[in-house]
Amino acid sequence: MLPQWNRNPPFNITRASHVVLTSRDLAASRDFYTQVVGLVLTEETPDVLYLRGLEEAAHHSVLIQRISADEPSCRAVGFRVGDEEDLEKALRYFRSRNVSVQELSVPHQGRTIRIIDPVGSVVELCATMEVAPRFMQDFHLFRGGSPQRLDHFQLVTYDVQSATDFYAEIGFRVAEYTTGADDQLWGSWLERKGNTHDLVFTNGHGPQLHHFAFTTPDANSLIHACDVSSSLRAGDIIDRGPGRHGISNALFVYFRDPDGHRIELFTSHYQFIDIEAPPIRWDISDPRRAQLWGFPASRRWFFEASVFENSPVKEPLLKADVPTLEAYLAGT
Amino acid sequence: MLPQWNRNPPFNITRASHVVLTSRDLAASRDFYTQVVGLVLTEETPDVLYLRGLEEAAHHSVLIQRISADEPSCRAVGFRVGDEEDLEKALRYFRSRNVSVQELSVPHQGRTIRIIDPVGSVVELCATMEVAPRFMQDFHLFRGGSPQRLDHFQLVTYDVQSATDFYAEIGFRVAEYTTGADDQLWGSWLERKGNTHDLVFTNGHGPQLHHFAFTTPDANSLIHACDVSSSLRAGDIIDRGPGRHGISNALFVYFRDPDGHRIELFTSHYQFIDIEAPPIRWDISDPRRAQLWGFPASRRWFFEASVFENSPVKEPLLKADVPTLEAYLAGT
Amino acid sequence: MLPQWNRNPPFNITRASHVVLTSRDLAASRDFYTQVVGLVLTEETPDVLYLRGLEEAAHHSVLIQRISADEPSCRAVGFRVGDEEDLEKALRYFRSRNVSVQELSVPHQGRTIRIIDPVGSVVELCATMEVAPRFMQDFHLFRGGSPQRLDHFQLVTYDVQSATDFYAEIGFRVAEYTTGADDQLWGSWLERKGNTHDLVFTNGHGPQLHHFAFTTPDANSLIHACDVSSSLRAGDIIDRGPGRHGISNALFVYFRDPDGHRIELFTSHYQFIDIEAPPIRWDISDPRRAQLWGFPASRRWFFEASVFENSPVKEPLLKADVPTLEAYLAGT
Amino acid sequence: MLPQWNRNPPFNITRASHVVLTSRDLAASRDFYTQVVGLVLTEETPDVLYLRGLEEAAHHSVLIQRISADEPSCRAVGFRVGDEEDLEKALRYFRSRNVSVQELSVPHQGRTIRIIDPVGSVVELCATMEVAPRFMQDFHLFRGGSPQRLDHFQLVTYDVQSATDFYAEIGFRVAEYTTGADDQLWGSWLERKGNTHDLVFTNGHGPQLHHFAFTTPDANSLIHACDVSSSLRAGDIIDRGPGRHGISNALFVYFRDPDGHRIELFTSHYQFIDIEAPPIRWDISDPRRAQLWGFPASRRWFFEASVFENSPVKEPLLKADVPTLEAYLAGT
Repeated sequence: MLPQWNRNPPFNITRASHVVLTSRDLAASRDFYTQVVGLVLTEETPDVLYLRGLEEAAHHSVLIQRISADEPSCRAVGFRVGDEEDLEKALRYFRSRNVSVQELSVPHQGRTIRIIDPVGSVVELCATMEVAPRFMQDFHLFRGGSPQRLDHFQLVTYDVQSATDFYAEIGFRVAEYTTGADDQLWGSWLERKGNTHDLVFTNGHGPQLHHFAFTTPDANSLIHACDVSSSLRAGDIIDRGPGRHGISNALFVYFRDPDGHRIELFTSHYQFIDIEAPPIRWDISDPRRAQLWGFPASRRWFFEASVFENSPVKEPLLKADVPTLEAYLAGT
Repeated sequence: MLPQWNRNPPFNITRASHVVLTSRDLAASRDFYTQVVGLVLTEETPDVLYLRGLEEAAHHSVLIQRISADEPSCRAVGFRVGDEEDLEKALRYFRSRNVSVQELSVPHQGRTIRIIDPVGSVVELCATMEVAPRFMQDFHLFRGGSPQRLDHFQLVTYDVQSATDFYAEIGFRVAEYTTGADDQLWGSWLERKGNTHDLVFTNGHGPQLHHFAFTTPDANSLIHACDVSSSLRAGDIIDRGPGRHGISNALFVYFRDPDGHRIELFTSHYQFIDIEAPPIRWDISDPRRAQLWGFPASRRWFFEASVFENSPVKEPLLKADVPTLEAYLAGT
Repeated sequence: MLPQWNRNPPFNITRASHVVLTSRDLAASRDFYTQVVGLVLTEETPDVLYLRGLEEAAHHSVLIQRISADEPSCRAVGFRVGDEEDLEKALRYFRSRNVSVQELSVPHQGRTIRIIDPVGSVVELCATMEVAPRFMQDFHLFRGGSPQRLDHFQLVTYDVQSATDFYAEIGFRVAEYTTGADDQLWGSWLERKGNTHDLVFTNGHGPQLHHFAFTTPDANSLIHACDVSSSLRAGDIIDRGPGRHGISNALFVYFRDPDGHRIELFTSHYQFIDIEAPPIRWDISDPRRAQLWGFPASRRWFFEASVFENSPVKEPLLKADVPTLEAYLAGT
Repeated sequence: MLPQWNRNPPFNITRASHVVLTSRDLAASRDFYTQVVGLVLTEETPDVLYLRGLEEAAHHSVLIQRISADEPSCRAVGFRVGDEEDLEKALRYFRSRNVSVQELSVPHQGRTIRIIDPVGSVVELCATMEVAPRFMQDFHLFRGGSPQRLDHFQLVTYDVQSATDFYAEIGFRVAEYTTGADDQLWGSWLERKGNTHDLVFTNGHGPQLHHFAFTTPDANSLIHACDVSSSLRAGDIIDRGPGRHGISNALFVYFRDPDGHRIELFTSHYQFIDIEAPPIRWDISDPRRAQLWGFPASRRWFFEASVFENSPVKEPLLKADVPTLEAYLAGT
C-alpha cells in the first residue's frame, strides 16, 4: 500500500549524491570507470579513487576504497541535504526515532552523518562538498558513455513496504510503484529532486545495492559505452540491455565493474513535480514494467548485487516467481 | 550586482509551467506546433489551442488564443506553485508589496492569479491543472523535435537588475549571469526546479517575451525538427542555430511560429541544486557566452520579440553594442 | 576454403535489389512495414504490397504477395544487373551451366529472370524498374526506423562452400568469412556494390532466407524502431539485439514481421573496394564474430527462417554446436 | 548541358582516394586532424603526416607535406583505379589525348601517375596502397567527428562544362547538377563508387580545391566535432553549418584547418547505382539546392579555397551573383 507522502518533512534531502564502494583492485576500477563509463577522476590516493560525472561541480559522486582480503561491498549510498541546518535537523530526527546514526569525517565532504535505515541500508547525508570544475564543456575529455551526473540508487530490500514508509515520512515521493493483486508493494520509485527517482526499492534478498545510475546525454552515448566496453575487451560486463524500461521510461544499459558492482547508464526519464500528477502503478505481472522491448534481464541481474558491509542480508517477505531467461527461453 | 538569493521565500514557485500567446491563424499555429515542433494537441476550440509536450502530465503548457485585428502578443508566462496554500501566500505577498495582482478563471487550471512584475512582465501562477496522459511512451506519435516538456522563458527587460532582485526575493536562484566591467548585470539565468533556468532576463527593449523553450531528447531530435521544417517548406522559420550556447550549455535551435513568436528547442542543460555550487559568471564581451561554435545570431534574433499585451516597451537602461551578423561579416 | 574471386565476371550484378515474400495478412504486413519499420508503400493491390526505402528511386524493394492457405515463404531474392545486355549475358551464362533459369513477367520491373542456384536458393535478376521519387528529403514522412535502402540478404544454406564458389565465379567478392580449425567455410559475406555485403551465406538447414536488411541513418533510428514496435504493442517481434556484430561492424536489431519473415535494421558497415584490402577472417568459435557486446541471439534467431517456396530444405553438411541462450545462461 | 555518360570507360576509376596538402605547421595540422576531426595518424616524419579515417584499410587518405615559405596549397587530389592494368590503360589514354601526365614515386602507394586535367586540376591515380588496419572497431580511439572514410572532393573551376565533359568521358556519372535558365552547367556532382559523389565541380575562380569530405557515422558525431573544436578553442574554424544540403542530402559542417584548407564532415548521402535513376537537376536560383535549412554560407565559404600548386587560377566563364550573408541580412 502506498504510504502518505510527507510534503513537510523534518529536514530537506535534495538529491542522490554519492556512493561508497570497496574494491580489491583500484587500478582496474579506475580504468573501467574512466574509460568505459567515462567518469572524471578528481583525485586518487593509494587507497581511494574519487570520481565524478562530467557536469558535476562536486568533488565526487563515486568513491572507491581499497580493500585487500574481504568481499567487495557497498559502504554507503549518500544523499545531499539542503544545508547544515537540515543536517542538524536530520541528526535530531533520527535520534528521536532510535535510528542508528553516527557522525563521520569524510575528506572533501562537509559535516557528514551515517544512518542505518530500518531495512538495514547504510545511508550517508551531508550538506556540502568541495567544489570541482564542471567539465560539461570540455568535450574533448568525453569518453565512453559521457556520464553527466549521478542520478539514483536502486536497493534490494526484504521489505519494500517498511522501506517505502520510512522514506515517505522523510519526504520522498513515490513516482512509480509495482504491486500484486493484493496491493502488496513489490517495488517503489522514490524521488526528491523533481524527476522520476533518487532511490528505488525492489523486493529481494536485502539490503543490497542493486545498482547506481548515471545519466548519459543520449542513446548514442549509451551505445558508445557498449562499443568501448567491447573494444577494450570488457564486453562481458554488460548484464542487461540496451533496452527500454516501462517504469521510468529509461533507455538503459547495465554494466558490472571489475568488483562486480553494477552501474546503470541511462537516458530519458521525466519531470515529476506537480502535486496533482499521479504516481504510475504497474502490476508486478506486467512484463512491460521491466522492459518495453528487448531481452529480459539475465539471472545475474536478478540475483546478484553488492552487499552493504556489515549489514546482514535477509530473506524477502514477498516470495517471487521472478521472470528469468529460462522463462523467456520457453517461448523462443 | 548579484542580489542575495532568498532561500526561504514567502511562497514556493516550483517550475515554469505554461505560456499564453495570441495568434491570427490558429490553423497555421496548430500545424506548426504539432508537425514541426511536435507538441501534442490536448484540446482545440474555435478560439483556443491547448498544447503540451510529450511527457507532460498537465493539460497544457502552450495556450494559443485567437485574435483578429491586433498584433500577436504574449498574454502571460506561467509558473506553478507548490500547492493552493502557496498560491494564497503569493497573493498576500504581492498585495503587501503593491504588486498588481488579479484573480483569473482559466479553463483546465486550478485557481490562478496574474501579476505584473516590476519590469512590466505579465506572470501567471497556479498550483494545479487538469491531468493529461503522459505520451512519452507513445513513440509512434513522436513528430518533429519530439519536445518533452516546457523548460524556461527568456524575457527581454529594460532593467535586468530590478527584475533579478524581484525574482531573487521570491526564491529564484541565479545559475549564470553576464556582467560588464563595472559589474552591471546584463543578463541573469534564474532557476527554481534544480537545473539551469526557469526564467531568464536579458537587457533590451522590454518587457518582451524573447522565447520559450522545450527540451528535446537529443541532438537528433533537434536536427529532425530542422529537417521537417524544411520538408514542410517552413525552412525560413529558423532564426538561430543549430549551435551550442556557452551559457547553460544548451545545444539549441530557435524557430519562429507563424505569428512570429519564438520557440527554442534544446538539449543538454545541467543540474544546479547544491548550495555551494557557484553561479557561473560570463563577461558580456565574451562571445563564447552566446555560442561555443556556430554562426552568430541573426539581427532578428536580437531585435524581434513578442510584446506583452498592454505592457508598454521601454528603452533599456544599459546601452549595448550588440554583436550582429554585420560584425561577423567583417571577419568573413 | 576461400574461392578465387572472379574480377571479370560473365555479367555485371550491381546490388541487392528486392525480396519477394508471401503473407497471409497483407493488412498486418502493411502496418508492420510502414509503421514499425517505416517503409514507403509505393502501391497496393488486393494481392500485392509494393514497398521501398525512403531514399530508393526504384518502385519496390520489398514485394509482398498474398497467399491463403499455405505457409508464408520467400519466393525470391532479387539482384540488379548493370543493363539489359548484362541480363542477356546472365541468361546465356546460366543456360550454359545448366542452372535452372526462367523468364518472368513482373509488373514495374524490366525484363526479369529467375534462377535456382546450386544450393536451391531462388534468385531473381533484372536490369531496371520503374522509377519512384526518392523520399529522403520528405522528413515529415519518416517513421519507425527510417529505413533508407535495402542492403543485403542472408541465406541459410546446407553447403556454404558450394554457394560461395558459385557466387565468386559470377563476381561476388568475399569481404568477411568464418572458418573452423580445418579451414572449412562456415559463413561467407559476399559483396558487389563496394561495401561489406550484398549476400551472406551461413551454415544450417537450407536453403532458407534468414533475413533481409535495410540501412538506417543512425543508432537513434534503430532505437526508435524498437520504441515504436513497443508503443504499437508489437514489442515481442524483436528476436535479436540491439547489439553490434563483429562481422560487418553493423549495429543491428532484428524484427520478425507478422508472417515470421525476419528483417534487420542496421547502421555502420564499411566500404570495401580496393583490391589489396584483405577479407576479414573470423574463427567460428570466436564469440566476437557474432556480437561485440550484447545478449547472444535467441534460439528463434538460430533455428527459424523463411523457406523458399518449393525448394526443399536439406541438412547442413557441417554440424554445429550453435551457441544458444542456454549456453549463455550457464554463465549468468 | 549534361554530357553523355561513358558507361564503358577506357579504364576503371573506383573511388576518391586521397588528398595531398601542404602546411606551414605540421604540429598544428596534426592536432587539428587527430583531435578535432578525429583522423588516425598512420605515420609521421619530420616532413609528412599520413592520416586516414577510422574504417580505412589504406595507409593514408590525407597526406600533409611541410613547406616553409610558400602559401599552403593542394598538390593533388587522388583517385584509385581498379588494378595496375587500369593504371597502364589510363597512362596510355591520357598520352593519346595529350593530357599532361607524369609518373611519380610516392611512399606507401603503388605505381602512381599525376595528370593535369583540362581545367588545370592536379589529379593523382594509383591502384594500390600499403594496407593499414581498419580501426572502425577500436571505439575507444574515436575522437572528434569519428570520420570513417574519405568520400569526395569539391573543386572550383572556371569552366564546369569542360571539366564535366572530361570526367564523363572517363566514366564519371552525374548524380546531381545545377543549371541556369539557359541550361548552362553551373555545377556537377560526379560519382564512380555508387553513391552521390566522388568529385564535384562548381563555377568560380579555379582550379582550386574547395574542400574534401569525410563521412561521419551520424549527426551526433558531427555535433561532437563542433563541440570539440570549441573546447579546444578552435571554434572559429567552422565556416559553414551545421546544415542540410539540398544537393546530395548531406547533413554537413565545414571546418578550416590551420593552413586554411577546408574539410567537410557529413552524413546521409544516398546510393546511386541503377541506370534508370535520373540525375537530379537543381536551378541555380533555388536556395534549397545549397541548404534545406540553416544559415547561408559565409563569404569565406564562397571566395576562399586552396589553390593547386603551380596551377594558375582563371576567371570563371559564368558570372555569378553569388548569394551572400549580406543578401541574407537584407531579410533579417
